[in-house]
Amino acid sequence: MGEDLIEQYRIRSEPYYRATGNEIALYEAAYSVRMPLMLKGPTGCGKTRFVEHMAWRLGRPLVTVACNEDMTASDLIGRFLLDAEGTRWQDGPLTLAARHGAICYLDEIVEARQDTVVVIHPLTDTRRALPLEKKGELVRAHPDFQLVISYNPGYQSMMKDLKPSTKQRFGALDFDYPEHGVEAEIVAHESGVSLQLADKLVSIAERARNLKGHGLDEGISTRMLVYAGSLIVQGVDPLAACQMALVRPISDDPDMRDALDAAVATVF
Amino acid sequence: MGEDLIEQYRIRSEPYYRATGNEIALYEAAYSVRMPLMLKGPTGCGKTRFVEHMAWRLGRPLVTVACNEDMTASDLIGRFLLDAEGTRWQDGPLTLAARHGAICYLDEIVEARQDTVVVIHPLTDTRRALPLEKKGELVRAHPDFQLVISYNPGYQSMMKDLKPSTKQRFGALDFDYPEHGVEAEIVAHESGVSLQLADKLVSIAERARNLKGHGLDEGISTRMLVYAGSLIVQGVDPLAACQMALVRPISDDPDMRDALDAAVATVF
Amino acid sequence: MGEDLIEQYRIRSEPYYRATGNEIALYEAAYSVRMPLMLKGPTGCGKTRFVEHMAWRLGRPLVTVACNEDMTASDLIGRFLLDAEGTRWQDGPLTLAARHGAICYLDEIVEARQDTVVVIHPLTDTRRALPLEKKGELVRAHPDFQLVISYNPGYQSMMKDLKPSTKQRFGALDFDYPEHGVEAEIVAHESGVSLQLADKLVSIAERARNLKGHGLDEGISTRMLVYAGSLIVQGVDPLAACQMALVRPISDDPDMRDALDAAVATVF
Amino acid sequence: MGEDLIEQYRIRSEPYYRATGNEIALYEAAYSVRMPLMLKGPTGCGKTRFVEHMAWRLGRPLVTVACNEDMTASDLIGRFLLDAEGTRWQDGPLTLAARHGAICYLDEIVEARQDTVVVIHPLTDTRRALPLEKKGELVRAHPDFQLVISYNPGYQSMMKDLKPSTKQRFGALDFDYPEHGVEAEIVAHESGVSLQLADKLVSIAERARNLKGHGLDEGISTRMLVYAGSLIVQGVDPLAACQMALVRPISDDPDMRDALDAAVATVF
Amino acid sequence: MGEDLIEQYRIRSEPYYRATGNEIALYEAAYSVRMPLMLKGPTGCGKTRFVEHMAWRLGRPLVTVACNEDMTASDLIGRFLLDAEGTRWQDGPLTLAARHGAICYLDEIVEARQDTVVVIHPLTDTRRALPLEKKGELVRAHPDFQLVISYNPGYQSMMKDLKPSTKQRFGALDFDYPEHGVEAEIVAHESGVSLQLADKLVSIAERARNLKGHGLDEGISTRMLVYAGSLIVQGVDPLAACQMALVRPISDDPDMRDALDAAVATVF
Amino acid sequence: MGEDLIEQYRIRSEPYYRATGNEIALYEAAYSVRMPLMLKGPTGCGKTRFVEHMAWRLGRPLVTVACNEDMTASDLIGRFLLDAEGTRWQDGPLTLAARHGAICYLDEIVEARQDTVVVIHPLTDTRRALPLEKKGELVRAHPDFQLVISYNPGYQSMMKDLKPSTKQRFGALDFDYPEHGVEAEIVAHESGVSLQLADKLVSIAERARNLKGHGLDEGISTRMLVYAGSLIVQGVDPLAACQMALVRPISDDPDMRDALDAAVATVF
Repeated sequence: MGEDLIEQYRIRSEPYYRATGNEIALYEAAYSVRMPLMLKGPTGCGKTRFVEHMAWRLGRPLVTVACNEDMTASDLIGRFLLDAEGTRWQDGPLTLAARHGAICYLDEIVEARQDTVVVIHPLTDTRRALPLEKKGELVRAHPDFQLVISYNPGYQSMMKDLKPSTKQRFGALDFDYPEHGVEAEIVAHESGVSLQLADKLVSIAERARNLKGHGLDEGISTRMLVYAGSLIVQGVDPLAACQMALVRPISDDPDMRDALDAAVATVF
Repeated sequence: MGEDLIEQYRIRSEPYYRATGNEIALYEAAYSVRMPLMLKGPTGCGKTRFVEHMAWRLGRPLVTVACNEDMTASDLIGRFLLDAEGTRWQDGPLTLAARHGAICYLDEIVEARQDTVVVIHPLTDTRRALPLEKKGELVRAHPDFQLVISYNPGYQSMMKDLKPSTKQRFGALDFDYPEHGVEAEIVAHESGVSLQLADKLVSIAERARNLKGHGLDEGISTRMLVYAGSLIVQGVDPLAACQMALVRPISDDPDMRDALDAAVATVF
Repeated sequence: MGEDLIEQYRIRSEPYYRATGNEIALYEAAYSVRMPLMLKGPTGCGKTRFVEHMAWRLGRPLVTVACNEDMTASDLIGRFLLDAEGTRWQDGPLTLAARHGAICYLDEIVEARQDTVVVIHPLTDTRRALPLEKKGELVRAHPDFQLVISYNPGYQSMMKDLKPSTKQRFGALDFDYPEHGVEAEIVAHESGVSLQLADKLVSIAERARNLKGHGLDEGISTRMLVYAGSLIVQGVDPLAACQMALVRPISDDPDMRDALDAAVATVF
Repeated sequence: MGEDLIEQYRIRSEPYYRATGNEIALYEAAYSVRMPLMLKGPTGCGKTRFVEHMAWRLGRPLVTVACNEDMTASDLIGRFLLDAEGTRWQDGPLTLAARHGAICYLDEIVEARQDTVVVIHPLTDTRRALPLEKKGELVRAHPDFQLVISYNPGYQSMMKDLKPSTKQRFGALDFDYPEHGVEAEIVAHESGVSLQLADKLVSIAERARNLKGHGLDEGISTRMLVYAGSLIVQGVDPLAACQMALVRPISDDPDMRDALDAAVATVF
Repeated sequence: MGEDLIEQYRIRSEPYYRATGNEIALYEAAYSVRMPLMLKGPTGCGKTRFVEHMAWRLGRPLVTVACNEDMTASDLIGRFLLDAEGTRWQDGPLTLAARHGAICYLDEIVEARQDTVVVIHPLTDTRRALPLEKKGELVRAHPDFQLVISYNPGYQSMMKDLKPSTKQRFGALDFDYPEHGVEAEIVAHESGVSLQLADKLVSIAERARNLKGHGLDEGISTRMLVYAGSLIVQGVDPLAACQMALVRPISDDPDMRDALDAAVATVF
Repeated sequence: MGEDLIEQYRIRSEPYYRATGNEIALYEAAYSVRMPLMLKGPTGCGKTRFVEHMAWRLGRPLVTVACNEDMTASDLIGRFLLDAEGTRWQDGPLTLAARHGAICYLDEIVEARQDTVVVIHPLTDTRRALPLEKKGELVRAHPDFQLVISYNPGYQSMMKDLKPSTKQRFGALDFDYPEHGVEAEIVAHESGVSLQLADKLVSIAERARNLKGHGLDEGISTRMLVYAGSLIVQGVDPLAACQMALVRPISDDPDMRDALDAAVATVF
């Protein structure tokens, strides 16, 4: 039954991914020794897409968990459910992945409480085991299992950071928004706009990213450019599309909105 | 059974909505690419009515959730209930909407805890999936499903704001109270008072809105004007109706009450 | 079964209520358009009695809920109970009232957590619906249903106040202690003392109310005067009755007690 | 079954109580109109014994609840228990008392959370009803039911005090340690020491009570004197008995211990 | 069944206890009037052993509970467990002791939350009763039952102290580390080292105890000396044994470690 | 069944461990008197491996628990699970180990709440017993049972430290990173790189460890060097391997990264 379940997480067709360096080769080396990996980088720059691509390339199912403050260890590991014949154990996503050899991707791990984070420790050293204490079972990880986490250094603070004893259990790959031409290529491919229009959208994003830390928490991501492009393809006026997809979502401050609107107006 | 359930959320007759710009066309373009939308604006200016109108116009059921601080992820996603034959899974409103192709409207999303907000992430990127981790099911969203959230920038603060990684998953539409003539038309239509009397009520509201931030947290909304009109139609004296529906609910401060009473007295 | 249950909440005989203004007519107008109402005023001035009287006058059952900090949404809406045949849904007081056309009175609403307060929103706009998310049912309010809340502005603070988006869903009626003659009449009627003695008790209360904010959190309420009168009718010496019912309950501060005792001694 | 249960709380023999004023008559008057009562006074001065005595004198069972911070409303009201035939309702102590006409004594009420305190409101006004919201039952209080609470003004603070809306639902009786001769009589009666020795113990207590607020949180109570007397009756040396029962329990501060030891040494 | 259960807590052979004063006689007097007792003193000085010895001497079973912050009242009193025939009541350790006449020893009572502490009140006054509110039973304590608590004054603070209303329900006995010769005798007896070597170990402890409050939270306890002695008997070098059992466990501060190592080196 | 369960925790083959002092002899002496042990030292220096080695050497199963803030006493001790025949007791890892004579290793004990820590007390004194209060059973520890905890003094703070009453129940062994030659030997053995390359990696680590406390929370551990070596064996360029495994995981600070990169560049 677990085998049927894990098949849901298999990626059927190649996810589009445009490499920007040697990250594919480094991931493959890390996977070959099953080194746990930490992907660092800002929101919406392509970390999730990269893991999807690698899972497809390596032929492994991908179990993704969006971490959050109230996620408990049981949400990762599993729990007993009450059934007609009494209690039945239900593997959580981490156990499912460990048992059946999937890649388990814990997205935005710093959001989780440290007690939840700590349950991954025995899977990230030579033991590669996961004790299901409530069930009284010691799950030995499948040889194909790998653990990947994502981490946004921009959020990092004294209050929310991984413990050193967690960090050093992972190799790390840095991610950032792609360089101009590559990003335009991605936007054109994903939204359907022309490369020329995509180039303009990237220019707007680059101006906005320079405002990060000067009143903007985050710049405009590649994902947002794809949204703007999609609206334009639907016939929405480029100015209105950019306001709706790029400017209004990220700021309510009148001055910042003016600055962003000006960046849009310069280009269109 | 889910199909019967979702029919409860279908809107039978056209909800009255008076457009104030190109918001209907922009919503339709966004819906055609299933872009998640964020509606920004003050309390009682018509955001909820707009979504109801669009759901009716697009022929989609509308599942509305009033967000709050103690809403858990399970309140959105669903949970197991104990039954005569053991446990039975009960879809939460988000799962119900995703599975059956409704529009899911999360009202006042900033009230929810970030961990609850984060569960919408996989429904707002290209995956359009919702993992029911407790059930071990990966729900692929119905092609007609769309996610809409509302957001009151007036409440926004360091403590309660959406994370950048959430914000940039949405296109955004701004809302505000309608301009004078349009608002009077709405008040007359909804309460049954004459356009002339509705015009007076709107004048009172406009004076009160200028006091926002000077001792008033929020101005007088369109909804409150409709309440005042309804009382007048019931035969209540306009001064008493305005005190009961416009002044007393929003302030206990004697000076502010005097200022608001004066605004009422000037008009009637 | 719900019908039997709601009958428990029907008020059999006319509750004594002495009107002090046009509040009965205003309530009736509000009820005729089913406008949600907020009753504002100090503790023990007669808000609860007024709602009881109006429920009796309008022939509607009255479901009262004393709000508190730890009241959950489920305490208002209902929950599943485990039964011999599995789980059985139990309507909470708000659902009971909405379903069967009662007046639901939420006493001291500011005591409740905002997340609990927010569940009343869909019942207070044109939808007049209550989604029972755990049950997967959308309850349409009975045409006779009305929501009434009470609110003590004296407690209002930054920490505990209703959100503007809640406040503006209600019409508001102000209450205060009745004027001297009316209050004496009430005290005499309720306790059985002579009007002359009741007049003396009201005089004491008026002196104490002037001390509110000068070391007293609340003045002496009408209810406390009725208690004092009842003791006197039982043969307790008026001075001892006033100390026991009016002075000792509200202050432990020696100076304040002296001031209150002096007020009592002046009258008796 | 409830009738059998309540019989456990009936007081079989007269509890020793030495009146110090007109408190018995005042209590009887209050009980005859079923006025809720608040007993104020320091720890160990005889409040609990007084209620036991009055319950015996009035022939009513006495249900006592020691209040605490984590007591929930359900701990007072009752809850469903799972049984072979599904769920079974279990009355809490407050419901038990209200249903069967006992006196319900909530000891140290300020320790309870306000939300728990608030559940007593409908039992303390003219309604005399207790809504069991989870059970869907409205319990009308038995005609013999009375509510009594105790309250230690020494603990009272901004953080832990009763709300004015609670306080004014009660008549109040003040208690303090009895005057010298009466207290000696009580100590002799309860411990078995001679009146002469009891007199010495009371002298020690009086010196210690003068230190209250000067390094001691509470003085030496009547109960502690009874303990010391009991040890002396067992053959323990009076000095050792006083150290063990009067000094060591209330202070670890060397200077305070010296002062208390000196008070003991002066007497013996 | 409870009788079988309580037998587990009977102490079969005499626990070694070396009296240092009249504590055995005082305890016996207190037990003969069933006075609740509070044992005060630093960690590891023999309080637990003393209670074990007294329980053996008096022929009473001893139920020990290590108190902690998250211990609930149910952990002391008991709870319903779900069984094949529905729910079954399970006495907690306090109820077990009260019902069957054991001595109940609550170790480190200040660690417990006040609400948990308060459940012992009705067992510590003349009522000697324990209301099992969830079960609807009023347990009258067995005539042999006694309550003993331990208390470390060194931890006492504003945040964590017993309430005066709790403290004065107990007689108190002070404990401290035994004087030199007695402590050496104990160490020799318990570890098997010679009296001469035990004498050296005690000398080290005495030096360390002088450092308490000057960088050390607690001194070296008798228990730790027994550990060191045991290692020496196993053939470990005395210096290494003292580092492992006396120095390293209590400090990570290099200067403090040097001071303690010097104390060890002086002796060996 | 418990016997089958505990066999899962038996270590089949000798875990590689390179001793750096007399720690094996000291552990064996401590085990022979069943003294509870505390292993102190920085993250990733080999504490866990040492316990695995000792468990193998002593032929005892090893039950490891990664402690965390939200671990409850029940997570250690066990709980009742609902089954077809009602409730069934499930031993927690501590009970399992105590009952069947395993070594129980509580990793990073300071992470646990004090209330959870306190449950180990009765297992660490002469009683060697574990009361299962919910089950009403007193488990006497198996003669072979031993308790071991780990403790990172670098994390120690006022907020998170063991109580003195816990600390002094343990003997303590200090651990640190091995000296240069030994560490290179370990890295070569575990990763498969040459001793010469391992020597270079150790040099990088030593430079990084000097930065601890000057912007780095923890230095580079032996485990991280093994990761870097493994990547190099996979064909990754040494510079890229060191960045991925040694530099990027532990710092996001540009200056610190430069310093660490320089340390890498100097060596390769």
